Order: sequence, then C-alpha cells, then structure tokens
Amino acid sequence: MTHDASGDLPDYRAAVIDLLGAVGYGEISAFERLAADARMAPTLVDKAALARMAVTEFHHYERVVVRLTELGADPFDAMGPFVPAIDAFHERTAPADWLEGLVKAYVGDSIAIDFFREVAAFVDAPTRALLVDVLSDAGQAQFAIDALRAAMAADPAVSGRLALWGRRLVGEALSQAQRVAADRDTLAALVVGALGPSGARPDAALAEFARMLARITEAHTRRMRALDLAA
Amino acid sequence: MTHDASGDLPDYRAAVIDLLGAVGYGEISAFERLAADARMAPTLVDKAALARMAVTEFHHYERVVVRLTELGADPFDAMGPFVPAIDAFHERTAPADWLEGLVKAYVGDSIAIDFFREVAAFVDAPTRALLVDVLSDAGQAQFAIDALRAAMAADPAVSGRLALWGRRLVGEALSQAQRVAADRDTLAALVVGALGPSGARPDAALAEFARMLARITEAHTRRMRALDLAA
Repeated sequence: MTHDASGDLPDYRAAVIDLLGAVGYGEISAFERLAADARMAPTLVDKAALARMAVTEFHHYERVVVRLTELGADPFDAMGPFVPAIDAFHERTAPADWLEGLVKAYVGDSIAIDFFREVAAFVDAPTRALLVDVLSDAGQAQFAIDALRAAMAADPAVSGRLALWGRRLVGEALSQAQRVAADRDTLAALVVGALGPSGARPDAALAEFARMLARITEAHTRRMRALDLAA
Repeated sequence: MTHDASGDLPDYRAAVIDLLGAVGYGEISAFERLAADARMAPTLVDKAALARMAVTEFHHYERVVVRLTELGADPFDAMGPFVPAIDAFHERTAPADWLEGLVKAYVGDSIAIDFFREVAAFVDAPTRALLVDVLSDAGQAQFAIDALRAAMAADPAVSGRLALWGRRLVGEALSQAQRVAADRDTLAALVVGALGPSGARPDAALAEFARMLARITEAHTRRMRALDLAA
C-alpha cells in the first residue's frame, strides 16, 4: 500500500523523510569513502573508475536533497539522525588496501540496489521515481567485479582474506541497519510495507524487517559465491 | 597564433596532448583532494559544498579524457608525466583543518581559471571550447569565500595563519609549474603562445612563461587582499 507524501498521513510523511534522510547521508558518505578509497588505486584507470562511482553517489545525493526540499523538509535535519550509524559502519569497515576497497564498493552498491528495490514498492510515486532512477545506474560496479576476478586469478591466495572481509562488511551493515530500525519504528514499518492508514504496526514491521535483511543477506551470499568469494 | 591539433604540426599536437594531460591529472587530483578535505567540514552543508566542487573537477577530467581520445592519445599515458609534480604539490599542501582546505579550494580554483584564460588564446578551437566550458563553471568557490569571511569575522586571529597558508600554496604551485616548464619546452612554449610554425622558441618561451606566472601571482595577491588575507 502506498501513500502520498504530501498528503494527510503524518506518519507516512515523517517516515519518507526519514528514509530519504538515511539514503541521502548514505550517498554522500559513500561519495566520501569511495573518493578516499580511489587514492589506493594501483593505476589511473582504476582510480578514475572508482572516482566515477563516487561521483554517481554524489549525484544521487543531490536528487535526494531536491526531493526532501520538495517535501518541505530541511535536508540536513533529515540526514542528521543517520550520521552515527552510517559513520560507525564506515569507521569499522575502512579498507586496508585497494582490493578491500573494491569488495566494499561492490558489496555496498549491490546491497543498496537490493534495498531500494524492496522499498520502491511501498513509497509514493515521486519517491519511487527517484529510487528507480538510482537503480538505473546499477552496473557501475562491474569494473570492480572484473578487477577482483583478475586479482584472484593472479593470486588465488587473496580470495580467503577477501571472503572474510565481505562477510565482515555485510555483518556491520546489518548490525547498523538493525540499530536504525530499532530506533525508528515508522521508518522500519515503511520500508517493509507495514505502514498502514492507522500508522505503523511495530511488531509486524520488526519481523518483516528481519525477513528483508535475510533476503538481502542471501542475495549477498549468492553474489559472493558467484565471485568465488565464499567464506 | 593557433594551430590545428589534428594537423601537420607534430610539435603542436604533442604540446596540446601534454597540456591536456597536465590539466586532466590536475583535475582528477583536485577531485581526490577536495573530496578528502570535505571530510573536515564542520557541517553537512559545508561538506556538500566542497564535495560539489570535487564533482565538478571530476566532470572536467572526463571532458579532458574525451578530448585526449579524440586526438588519438592514450589519456593515461598523457597524464603520466605530470603525476610527480602534481602529487608533490598536494603532499606539501595538505590542509591541516577545514579553513586551510577552504583557502586551498579557493586559491586552486582561481589560479586554474587564470591559467586557462591565458592558455585559451593559443590552442585550437575544440581545445579552447573545453577550456571555456571549464571556465564557465567559475564561481564554484564563492561558498569558500563566504565561509572564510564568516570565520575571520568570528575569530580575526585566524587571518594571519591563513594568509601565510595562502602564500605557501601559491609558492608551491609556482615551484611545481616551473619544474614542469623546465622539463617540457614545447608545453611551456604552447601555453605562452611561443610555439611558432617552426616549433618552439625555448628562450622566448621561458621568459614569457615567467611573466605569465608573475601575472597569475599578482592576481592571486589581489584576491588575497580583497579577502583581508594579505601576508
């Protein structure tokens, strides 16, 4: 069931502003971290490829700011509540080298796509259009897959370390997502479609949120296996 | 006097490829450093403003890559020779805090604009169109000026330190520019319009190059004074 963000459901509007705040801060943080990780690139070609992913994230961030403003929200106020969880994620997952950076770029991009795909069903048309546009930029991470395959072909020993790293990334991401969901009932309800006309149904939302994280984790595991990065 | 980069003047073509290689590596390095400096921003609004400058630099970089490819050059080979000087500049001018980062963003942007304006007169039409487009993005640094004025109004004591920092920035930039010019005769000749049909006139170029640096330094000094950042 979808709603009109500008309409008469204050819970829905607040939850969409929360969602966009989280996505917006996620995007500008991804910009920053990818740009920083690009400095570890072994060649200018690699550097430019990761920098391009960073720039794409920044443009998504700008679209989110526009949408928040359309909704009458202060974009920076909307992002504020998500700074601790997203910063904590990045602080705990700072890549030690270029290959770890590539795995993080790929895993982060894929998980974001899975999440946006899940959520797009439950939001109003303009917000959905934004998420679908962001999804249409998928495939940016193909260069990371190619570079990782080449690195593992050249030195099969790296795959064990990178597999553990991939597990740690998804573990940290889930842990922060769960922290956010526990703090913000209506947001958690929104992203799993449990925000009814009479407001959130917190119990239903919590269980469904856990199921959503499970689906995202399964998809992550399949992708890691396809890359021969099973831990 | 201008030439056709795709034409029959091998010195001109090599010099334009050099110029674009230097500009391209300058742009992607500026992207990286501005993105890194954005992490020191005191607020999300400030962070986004510096990140936007970084993204603009990346788009300029992409245009340079397209032009180099049109000229039949390998963009990364073209950038290679300029990596040491540009990396050295950034290593010696890593901002210690947000305000130093703002001064660097403003000074770097202004000097690049002055340089492009000087050079645009001496290059072929497509290369000139690229430089003019880059120039049309001028004004990006206005937010840096506003933020610096506000910081100095709040704490006049910072202006002395920032004035010294501005001098150091321009000193390092000139020193690296001179190093590059000394190594690359035809490039130095091109940027001052001393690349004649019979090739470079190295002596004339060297003196004219020094005069160009003097003009850029004067403009820098005027800007610093206007900002009450005279050292």
